[in-house]
Amino acid sequence: MTNPTAAMLVIGDEILSGRTREGNAHHLAGELTRVGIDLREIRVVADGHETIVAAVRALAEGHDHLFTSGGIGPTHDDITAEAVAEAMGAAIGVRDDARAILAAHYTRRGQELNEARLRMARVPEGATLIDNPVSAAPGFTLGNVHVMAGVPQIFEAMLAGLLPRLAGGAPVLSQSLGVDRGEGDIAQALGEVAAEFPALSFGSYPFTRPDGSHGVNLVVRGQDGAGVGAAMVRLQELFG
Amino acid sequence: MTNPTAAMLVIGDEILSGRTREGNAHHLAGELTRVGIDLREIRVVADGHETIVAAVRALAEGHDHLFTSGGIGPTHDDITAEAVAEAMGAAIGVRDDARAILAAHYTRRGQELNEARLRMARVPEGATLIDNPVSAAPGFTLGNVHVMAGVPQIFEAMLAGLLPRLAGGAPVLSQSLGVDRGEGDIAQALGEVAAEFPALSFGSYPFTRPDGSHGVNLVVRGQDGAGVGAAMVRLQELFG
Repeated sequence: MTNPTAAMLVIGDEILSGRTREGNAHHLAGELTRVGIDLREIRVVADGHETIVAAVRALAEGHDHLFTSGGIGPTHDDITAEAVAEAMGAAIGVRDDARAILAAHYTRRGQELNEARLRMARVPEGATLIDNPVSAAPGFTLGNVHVMAGVPQIFEAMLAGLLPRLAGGAPVLSQSLGVDRGEGDIAQALGEVAAEFPALSFGSYPFTRPDGSHGVNLVVRGQDGAGVGAAMVRLQELFG
Repeated sequence: MTNPTAAMLVIGDEILSGRTREGNAHHLAGELTRVGIDLREIRVVADGHETIVAAVRALAEGHDHLFTSGGIGPTHDDITAEAVAEAMGAAIGVRDDARAILAAHYTRRGQELNEARLRMARVPEGATLIDNPVSAAPGFTLGNVHVMAGVPQIFEAMLAGLLPRLAGGAPVLSQSLGVDRGEGDIAQALGEVAAEFPALSFGSYPFTRPDGSHGVNLVVRGQDGAGVGAAMVRLQELFG
């Protein structure tokens, strides 16, 4: 069985300038693996309209799902919704359903739903809202593009609401084995085991401990749990 | 003055599966900003030959520099060097200069330079080696593509050796101002200040403190230090 594929698009000058460390890709990757959606690419681009439009088009066409992070707040540099609408050929404006959510939220807090905040009710026609239990302003799904906030707490809450809507595949299982040898000492035998189990993926990740000793962590991944187990037995015979 | 542009390509199934958190992009972004090279895009792709070839071609053509991270070790899944060579139309084989570096390193450690380790001496013709003071196996620069290791300690050491070779531009300066107000309360005025200073970039980053209070961090960035200072004065008048 082939799992659905996905890409992630992160919108954020602040990540490209080194000011902020990207905070959502690792969480998304783990959650998608858990539900059986294969994340194939992560792309970080700057806050430019044409840049975002081009990236959304390229990634939405090439994958079953595209998840975006960032650029949906109330300020002048929050341009993701407009760019996604253009990329997908949808009209965009303040939508009554999104406006009602924001109005209720700000009324409850005694704050004004001013023009800047109303920008967050701009949602493409035909999009389904994604609930934001943290700060109300919704994300949305338009076609196969899921538009979410960049603030990690909000991104994670939106994703938790979104994922049950999406059809996943077989979760990818993994097991790992730490080996106290150099990567170069085990590489050839590892390659031979990998060739024995073509349906599985074998990774080797060298590490150095604080005391200067080093080793390598071998990871076997695949949808076939019995196969992963059999491969681990082989690795343990060879390196355990 | 227009700064040179750059992209980063991270090769790693383990990042896309959520097993490992990407560890080099944030460091590269900060270092490039410091030397005046504009990082425009970061892309993470899987360990597939055609995937890497296509990404190297696309990113090397569109930027002055492409920095890659990952996939240059001794195991079967280390396929970056071959893919970069193909993307750039260069031949690749075990090179005497790289072999000599590895031979000296393993002789010193009393380890064997076996066939797997010799893979790390496969370097494209015409490439310049990038020194690896941590574990010897070199990276390389081929055309405008700089190929480095994925292990953060090695990536950072290689980058430190590489950067002085590259011509940078004007470093991008930044100043920030924390404001104890909602992003939606300041968005309109912030947009007006941004319009007053078109050469600068203005970002706003909402945060929530552990006590539940929140605010927004305003960041002004640009090559013109006096302009950044003047914009900060305006922001302080408005929000300070």
